[in-house]
Amino acid sequence: MYPRKLTRAVISNHDYPVVETKAGRLRGLLEEDVFIFRGVQYAEAARYEMPRKVTPWEGTKEAVIYGPVCKEINTQIAHDEYNVPHYHYIQDENCLNLNIWTKHIDTGAKRPVMVWFHGGGYATGSSIELYAYDGMELAEFGDVVVVSVNHRLNCIGYLDLSGYGEKYKYTGNLGQADLVASLQWVQENIAGFGGDPGNVMIFGQSGGGGKVDSLLQTPAADGLYHKASIQSGLFAGGSDRLQKDAQALADLVVKNLGLTRETIEEIEKIPYYKLARAARKAEQEISEMLGRRVSWAPVKDDDYFMGSGLYNPFREETKHIPVLVGSVQGEFDQNYNNVFAEGSKNDWDDAFVDSLIEKIHGDKGQEIAAAYLKAYPMKRKVDCLFTNKSCRTASRDYAFLRAGQGCAPAYNWVFALECPLNNGTIAWHNAEEAYMFHNANYLEASYIPGVSERLQDIMTGAWVAFAKTGDPNHVGMRIWTPATRENGACMIFDEETYPAFHHDDELMELLPLRGVMPATNARKGLVKLGGGPRQSL
Amino acid sequence: MYPRKLTRAVISNHDYPVVETKAGRLRGLLEEDVFIFRGVQYAEAARYEMPRKVTPWEGTKEAVIYGPVCKEINTQIAHDEYNVPHYHYIQDENCLNLNIWTKHIDTGAKRPVMVWFHGGGYATGSSIELYAYDGMELAEFGDVVVVSVNHRLNCIGYLDLSGYGEKYKYTGNLGQADLVASLQWVQENIAGFGGDPGNVMIFGQSGGGGKVDSLLQTPAADGLYHKASIQSGLFAGGSDRLQKDAQALADLVVKNLGLTRETIEEIEKIPYYKLARAARKAEQEISEMLGRRVSWAPVKDDDYFMGSGLYNPFREETKHIPVLVGSVQGEFDQNYNNVFAEGSKNDWDDAFVDSLIEKIHGDKGQEIAAAYLKAYPMKRKVDCLFTNKSCRTASRDYAFLRAGQGCAPAYNWVFALECPLNNGTIAWHNAEEAYMFHNANYLEASYIPGVSERLQDIMTGAWVAFAKTGDPNHVGMRIWTPATRENGACMIFDEETYPAFHHDDELMELLPLRGVMPATNARKGLVKLGGGPRQSL
Repeated sequence: MYPRKLTRAVISNHDYPVVETKAGRLRGLLEEDVFIFRGVQYAEAARYEMPRKVTPWEGTKEAVIYGPVCKEINTQIAHDEYNVPHYHYIQDENCLNLNIWTKHIDTGAKRPVMVWFHGGGYATGSSIELYAYDGMELAEFGDVVVVSVNHRLNCIGYLDLSGYGEKYKYTGNLGQADLVASLQWVQENIAGFGGDPGNVMIFGQSGGGGKVDSLLQTPAADGLYHKASIQSGLFAGGSDRLQKDAQALADLVVKNLGLTRETIEEIEKIPYYKLARAARKAEQEISEMLGRRVSWAPVKDDDYFMGSGLYNPFREETKHIPVLVGSVQGEFDQNYNNVFAEGSKNDWDDAFVDSLIEKIHGDKGQEIAAAYLKAYPMKRKVDCLFTNKSCRTASRDYAFLRAGQGCAPAYNWVFALECPLNNGTIAWHNAEEAYMFHNANYLEASYIPGVSERLQDIMTGAWVAFAKTGDPNHVGMRIWTPATRENGACMIFDEETYPAFHHDDELMELLPLRGVMPATNARKGLVKLGGGPRQSL
Repeated sequence: MYPRKLTRAVISNHDYPVVETKAGRLRGLLEEDVFIFRGVQYAEAARYEMPRKVTPWEGTKEAVIYGPVCKEINTQIAHDEYNVPHYHYIQDENCLNLNIWTKHIDTGAKRPVMVWFHGGGYATGSSIELYAYDGMELAEFGDVVVVSVNHRLNCIGYLDLSGYGEKYKYTGNLGQADLVASLQWVQENIAGFGGDPGNVMIFGQSGGGGKVDSLLQTPAADGLYHKASIQSGLFAGGSDRLQKDAQALADLVVKNLGLTRETIEEIEKIPYYKLARAARKAEQEISEMLGRRVSWAPVKDDDYFMGSGLYNPFREETKHIPVLVGSVQGEFDQNYNNVFAEGSKNDWDDAFVDSLIEKIHGDKGQEIAAAYLKAYPMKRKVDCLFTNKSCRTASRDYAFLRAGQGCAPAYNWVFALECPLNNGTIAWHNAEEAYMFHNANYLEASYIPGVSERLQDIMTGAWVAFAKTGDPNHVGMRIWTPATRENGACMIFDEETYPAFHHDDELMELLPLRGVMPATNARKGLVKLGGGPRQSL
């Protein structure tokens, strides 16, 4: 996605670079010292079919442009477009394709493979939705093989029609089955792209982190990956999506389409926009009926998917998988949409800050502020207003749970950088991604000269070390101890990166659990900074 | 669009950078040494209304992300996506916005202003459709103010409903009226962005070049610009879009919608997708009825628009405008879709090349090849197969016509670079844009180390010199003589840039006029290089 400033001619000839896959030959390109293959189909499926292997072809297919990304029910300019720049692309249901960045196309290279699952809940997003996802720099810096995956989402990836016949048994988890198929493709083909099929890390942020959590609890994925990273993908106060809810939602979709058990197969052929309209209406209806939000997500059917590790015992089969799990300090609670007041937070005077703290946190305000400064002694009092609880506690507890159940090490982290936007903004949901993709230099809202280069070397270095060995420690950072409930270990990524222990227990105890920040206070404008990040739930 | 590798923190604070416009304050950003304002609304209009001035606002609006781009009847992954990388963006009918790149936000700076009109015929595209359009480097290199404009297209910008009442009188030229409104906004506001409203250049490629040609013939635009550049925007064998054809197309759209003269106002409210469907059907119907293609374009009504300068006398009011006009050697006739054979053209042996020349050009083949080598002595014989006639002769003749009618100088050019794709591909439609936007380093298919840097300094330098003075000559290139039918002067932009005189008269005489190359011979693949560029007609 990033058209970097080139220093060499890009090579994309009919005969080089070409890689042989199980199904046929692919032609990519060589840019600087990284080979890129875009839009590589990893599976085939008609609507509501399980993914199946790609049909073999003769000759050489081109893999030089991105493949279509999944259809979305609604795509708008995101409220966080400035903070989290998007790369929009053509949407199509035929979206089972992946992208590869690698420095090698020989089978002897056997480099670690890092497979990225995008965010956007299970409803939106793509392998190339965010500029931060570009795999070029990560492949180059880490000498790893980077793969990013498109798969079916929303009402074509997670509509549970299991009540309508055996052929639809797993339709509630089709988007997950696509992810499994992508990992099977990686197993069978990645050696030709210089990757080691015996050393595959899956990683994802927000919904993508959720995908990693759920694959750990999915028997079909067992053996296809060896390390896992969950970034801002777990939320306190959430729950599994139960099959009865998923089926109830599907029933409403079917009803809104005017279909019945007898005519159900028509759902395979109706135009997507009609399906989407019925699905959107059904989402509203069921949320009103049940008094809680029911949307698109993997279905805990205790067959294909056993339910999130946050609410269910970890499976024996994946207890040996080491895990990185963490969150961003601000997430949805930063100030870029001026949630509490206008101007720059760092210009507010003490009295105004105190008045805001009292307004937001009431009697407990000063206690929270004190706990905040104890947790983050190098930050400002005002920032206690912009500190997230939901992702932080869920991520921390997930690490504790794995330790408590005898799993391989789980490493917990918080990304706490203050970014230069508006003269100082606590890092938001998605802000850490550019730092583990080594793309921090490219992002307007968050780049800090000197600081960003050092921090991305540390973070990308940790993710790459973890991909290689299952341990994120490397010589460029202080010692990162696996988390347990007893030690409360957490790595803080900030202008300085340092290990902490039980650093925010008191703060998290005191802070109220807030939902996603509403956009109601957003400044009037042509475009608004902030509001609930569309792609991030 | 290009997230360049940053070296400084980007500044976007609530109070800086802020510029006061006639309607209110705008907040942009300062990136390296260029101020950027994105998505700035320049006019307001409901569907089928003429554009009117922006309603003033209180406070400061944000202009840090791009505004929506015009709805398209159909958007696909372009066949030329690899050669001509696209930046897709959210589409909306409310699309009257522009983007600004400038090194100054003080009214004393008075730098030349370059206003870019995008291609895509009059049906598709946007101010940010192509990565090549990014204005950052041009603003920085040339110290000019770059503006790029979104406006209404296709059935909302060029549907001639004039037969349905006075209120719809100019609906066939609404997209043009938007362009005029953007230039009025520039007149009134650009000084605050460091621009000189007394020195505005309009430039565009393909459909954007057509827009420049038509504004020269549009009284409402008089006085709003001072220089004009038409790039690959004129085609031999074309014609004006007559009002009776435009009205006949509109009648079919109205009929397909089930509307009548009595109910016509409903067309202002129906969902765009229904309008688009009716419009697409109408386009097919009228083309079948008339045996020729009738689509979206400015309507020669001899009131708002006087018809292309290629077919009508130039207007006295704009004869003083100097013009740059040129085309690309390959345009639609290069080999990136393997139109004639597979492999790399530069690897074909002499006998095979001769057999192709005979196959394509018959008896005249060797004569054409000889004329080609006379025109381009530094190129290969095989390249006579990949040389465009339509844009080349129309652009040349347009320059001759202006000279013949006593207009200000017209400078003619051909961009003839061979690009590295597939081991050698003659430059395609759109290929020169990166060279006058100083973005050549970013484009995978065309970047040539050393050559591209030098050539973009020459070309961007010429465009900037032209914007400043109306004369493209600068010390970094050989002397460029204004074209007349007598001197046949043309600047050849290639690995070496040199002036030529009557260089390809014989070749153009001999070459057959071809249409846009069909994609039927395109190699089978996941994605196909080549085929008719979607955005380029």
